[in-house]
Amino acid sequence: MLSSIKRFLIGRPLKSTALGDQKLNKTKALAILSSDALSSVAYGPEQILIVLITVGAAAFWYSIPIAIGVLILLMALILSYRQIIFAYPHGGGAYVVSKNNLGVNPGLIAGGSLLVDYILTVAVSVSAGTDAITSAFPSLHSYNVVIAIIFVILLTILNLRGVTESASVLAYPVYLFVLALFILIGVGVYKILTGEVSPDLHASIGTPVAGISLFILLRAFASGSSALTGVEAISNAIPNFKNPAPNNAAKTLIAMGSLLAVLFTGIVFLAYYLSIVPSAEVTVVSQIAEEIFGRSFMYFFIQGTTALILILAANTGYSAFPLLAVNLAKDKFIPRAFTIRGDRLGYSNGIIILGLASIILIIAFGGHTENLIPLYAVGVFIPFTLSQTGMIVKWIREKPKGWMMKLTINSIGALISFIVTMIFFLTKFTQVWAVLIFLPIIIVIFHRIRKHYEAVGDQLRITTCEPILPIEGNIIIVPVAGITHVVENSLNYAKSLSAHQVIAVYVSFEREDEKKFEEKWKKWQPDVRLVTLNSYYRSIIQPLTKFVDTVEHKARESNYKVTVIIPQFIPKKGWHNILHNQSSLLIKAYLLYRRNVVVATVPYHLKK
Amino acid sequence: MLSSIKRFLIGRPLKSTALGDQKLNKTKALAILSSDALSSVAYGPEQILIVLITVGAAAFWYSIPIAIGVLILLMALILSYRQIIFAYPHGGGAYVVSKNNLGVNPGLIAGGSLLVDYILTVAVSVSAGTDAITSAFPSLHSYNVVIAIIFVILLTILNLRGVTESASVLAYPVYLFVLALFILIGVGVYKILTGEVSPDLHASIGTPVAGISLFILLRAFASGSSALTGVEAISNAIPNFKNPAPNNAAKTLIAMGSLLAVLFTGIVFLAYYLSIVPSAEVTVVSQIAEEIFGRSFMYFFIQGTTALILILAANTGYSAFPLLAVNLAKDKFIPRAFTIRGDRLGYSNGIIILGLASIILIIAFGGHTENLIPLYAVGVFIPFTLSQTGMIVKWIREKPKGWMMKLTINSIGALISFIVTMIFFLTKFTQVWAVLIFLPIIIVIFHRIRKHYEAVGDQLRITTCEPILPIEGNIIIVPVAGITHVVENSLNYAKSLSAHQVIAVYVSFEREDEKKFEEKWKKWQPDVRLVTLNSYYRSIIQPLTKFVDTVEHKARESNYKVTVIIPQFIPKKGWHNILHNQSSLLIKAYLLYRRNVVVATVPYHLKK
Repeated sequence: MLSSIKRFLIGRPLKSTALGDQKLNKTKALAILSSDALSSVAYGPEQILIVLITVGAAAFWYSIPIAIGVLILLMALILSYRQIIFAYPHGGGAYVVSKNNLGVNPGLIAGGSLLVDYILTVAVSVSAGTDAITSAFPSLHSYNVVIAIIFVILLTILNLRGVTESASVLAYPVYLFVLALFILIGVGVYKILTGEVSPDLHASIGTPVAGISLFILLRAFASGSSALTGVEAISNAIPNFKNPAPNNAAKTLIAMGSLLAVLFTGIVFLAYYLSIVPSAEVTVVSQIAEEIFGRSFMYFFIQGTTALILILAANTGYSAFPLLAVNLAKDKFIPRAFTIRGDRLGYSNGIIILGLASIILIIAFGGHTENLIPLYAVGVFIPFTLSQTGMIVKWIREKPKGWMMKLTINSIGALISFIVTMIFFLTKFTQVWAVLIFLPIIIVIFHRIRKHYEAVGDQLRITTCEPILPIEGNIIIVPVAGITHVVENSLNYAKSLSAHQVIAVYVSFEREDEKKFEEKWKKWQPDVRLVTLNSYYRSIIQPLTKFVDTVEHKARESNYKVTVIIPQFIPKKGWHNILHNQSSLLIKAYLLYRRNVVVATVPYHLKK
Repeated sequence: MLSSIKRFLIGRPLKSTALGDQKLNKTKALAILSSDALSSVAYGPEQILIVLITVGAAAFWYSIPIAIGVLILLMALILSYRQIIFAYPHGGGAYVVSKNNLGVNPGLIAGGSLLVDYILTVAVSVSAGTDAITSAFPSLHSYNVVIAIIFVILLTILNLRGVTESASVLAYPVYLFVLALFILIGVGVYKILTGEVSPDLHASIGTPVAGISLFILLRAFASGSSALTGVEAISNAIPNFKNPAPNNAAKTLIAMGSLLAVLFTGIVFLAYYLSIVPSAEVTVVSQIAEEIFGRSFMYFFIQGTTALILILAANTGYSAFPLLAVNLAKDKFIPRAFTIRGDRLGYSNGIIILGLASIILIIAFGGHTENLIPLYAVGVFIPFTLSQTGMIVKWIREKPKGWMMKLTINSIGALISFIVTMIFFLTKFTQVWAVLIFLPIIIVIFHRIRKHYEAVGDQLRITTCEPILPIEGNIIIVPVAGITHVVENSLNYAKSLSAHQVIAVYVSFEREDEKKFEEKWKKWQPDVRLVTLNSYYRSIIQPLTKFVDTVEHKARESNYKVTVIIPQFIPKKGWHNILHNQSSLLIKAYLLYRRNVVVATVPYHLKK
């Protein structure tokens, strides 16, 4: 039953050879890899204004130079990442670049922060999208957490179904959002040029503003640059592109950068020109849309696609997290399970872990994940800085053709990213200090995991040709709980393995019971030796283990092996299991993990 | 590590022979078994007034006749249950009485409603107690759910430590509460008699009230009788009493009834005389206490002990649920696991399930469990009615000495309980309809469980003396994942069982890999046959199962048994397990549950 539910949700398994069909063309890739970056224009400009309003509405003209600063940063990042794509066509982004050029630990810092960051992406975006929806339907407000969780589950299922399938579903909302904003900006600019929209009174650029400080401006810049989170996603996901993957990825990256630049500039300009004041109730984009279209269809279209893309922004996390996890897992820093492709050829374990982790975050923060945004932005700019720095080292070391130009681009990128990171720590320390604690912990865990894998590898590897001693014989212990067909079945099997070395063990809770059972046994199985053990504490495991220890100790002396055979009846239906004490499971686990004996289960299948 | 935490929380295991020491004397029994009933005087009188206020404060005098009605009901119930205690000295209360006299299904209705009811008791009482505490410290209000859950966990641990231990801890608050209310009532009556407290203007008894209807009065009566929930607890818990158990239980019951009567009457009288008007913010008891003592120490003492006893009322559920579960489990209507005594001789599974179920209820209702109260009251009065009716049948059938008197007592009890049940359905149908859906479902589940147990018993029982065919020989299949010490170890064991019938199976995901592996194998283990299987869908289980099926089919023809030996390395530390794919677990479970082969695990213990 479970497997048919799985089949229904995920789809039928795909052959490994179908991997090529699961690759993305540029249109689809743009949709699923840039939703995070594009969605941020819905809140990035607002973040700038929220900082400036602390000084006064007169300071709003600063949003224009700040936006230009963000655009420069964007351009630097896009050009740098374009170079990374060609230099590392197998993907891996910041982790691979930093590891290869700066060393293992910088790599792990980049990888670790991105790994956590993608989880934050999912939690933050889905919560934000849910907020947008429940703002429209206030009666749903108290179900925020549940709705957000349902969205995460839907995204998880969609991604488990496979990359192309999710791309097809997700492409429409992304392009609709882009279309909606293009119309908004186009009509807005047109109406302003034709004088149809009355230009509100806004301080002209250059007006001196009392109380403005560098600190405020830097803070506004940092807030604005949180709109750039997500631009690294494409460089992580190159293996998902159709061939030639690097070229396609680079083109997609440029397209995304251009879209982002146009939309960001447009929104900042309209907000400034229309003198929009950020408010707690209505978003900046919503105010602009209302000013230009009134409460018409277009207004609701813009609001609707915005809510949608906020949720879909989470999908960037789903695209990038599993691929980053594969890279870390291949290097043995996280569990190997992340490298396994699921039924639909996606890295299902990564997808599932991402979904679970973000659900936990959503529950832990009761759906109020907005406080995580600065943390999340820092978690992006740290790997930005590291990967650009890595590229600088690479160019200096390799000096390929035209390396001076490449070096310059990455140096600018590294410098700005570093400055932004510092600005975050300086202006928002109370919100981002956690990074300084979690990152070291994560890196220690990475190293411990790798150490364990290496230790296991060493122990499993066969280095000498020396054969191990053959086993001289087997002693079979069969714990029995009564005189039943299940026990009969197991004894029959035990005798077939080693006719003269079978010992049945009965654990009794009362002395009288013991005697009675011994008599019955003598009649039933006179040729099988029975040992009865009394348990004062009503535990079966303890006396049994003690007995097994004694037998095993003796057996080892003559190179005999001890096998414990557990009789077990298998009910016809799965739910029946909860009706039976699962002591056999406990006994099996206990003996297997604590003792050096073979544990065998002889199933007796019930027919009704 | 886990086991030492358990030891710390629960205490060291007790020998089965220590059972007698765990029995209760009357003082302790009264404390832990009557906390539910006694705590209800903290809200019962208020419930009456809340209904009457819908007509007007002039109607408050009706609380006196209604209270008299409740007292009559209480007396009838106490006398009836006293008879039940002597008639069924082994406990079981409503379930056993109804089953033995009215038949299985009435018994299950009584048992099922009580089972659910005890869960509701815990959830409702703990939530109410938590509310009382957070009302005093409003800053804690948003942590209501968490605090309630912590209380449930504490109660669960306390009960897992054992009956006497929990009784010692819980006795003080219960007696302090009784003491506090006695002082309140005593001082109150004294002050009224001496005229120290000015008698407020209250309508004298018999004043005609406009708008009063039978419906309202019945509703008020039903609300007031919800204060009687919990009186059946003693009759369920007779096995927990010291010998002579029935006599001690009967005396405890009478003591509880008397206390309850005095406290209930006292509170109703004071509320009427002082013209207390129920309000959403302050409880009736709190108003009375303030009127009499002002905001003095006594006021806070009364408030504190009231909050405490509301939480401890949950403990009645913990005393009665496991014992009722044992009775149902012995009759095979619920899983057998409920009959197992834990380390400290309590029925731990019942205690744990009760704790878990009530935590789930608390979370599901976000701590607002007050809407469950009517449901909970109905769930008590249904078994009240059934058990009294059962007693009627018993007396008529057996006609012991003085049976007419006994019959009369139980008939009155049955009649009043039945009327109260009907009143609940008539006046609060919107809150209690769920009973009509859940009870039938529960009863169907009970029957299905019993049917399953009987089917299993039939299949396990050895009825003929005909011996089963001995197994002719064994074929051993060893799935291998590589050339390692783990595999070497397992092959060595396999050869010791059946030197010539060992087949190693390798599942490859790529054709090339297959060839390479075969060559390596030939050099390493030339005498063990290797079968390689290719898996297109990256599943190990499917090709392996198919192969096992083929082998098993052939083997069965010549009465050979197939054993699958799973090589497994056991990491040194528990947490290491998450770093390794648990495919061996999956394979084992799959083969064991779906196929008729023996599954053996050969552990290879890692040393670092």
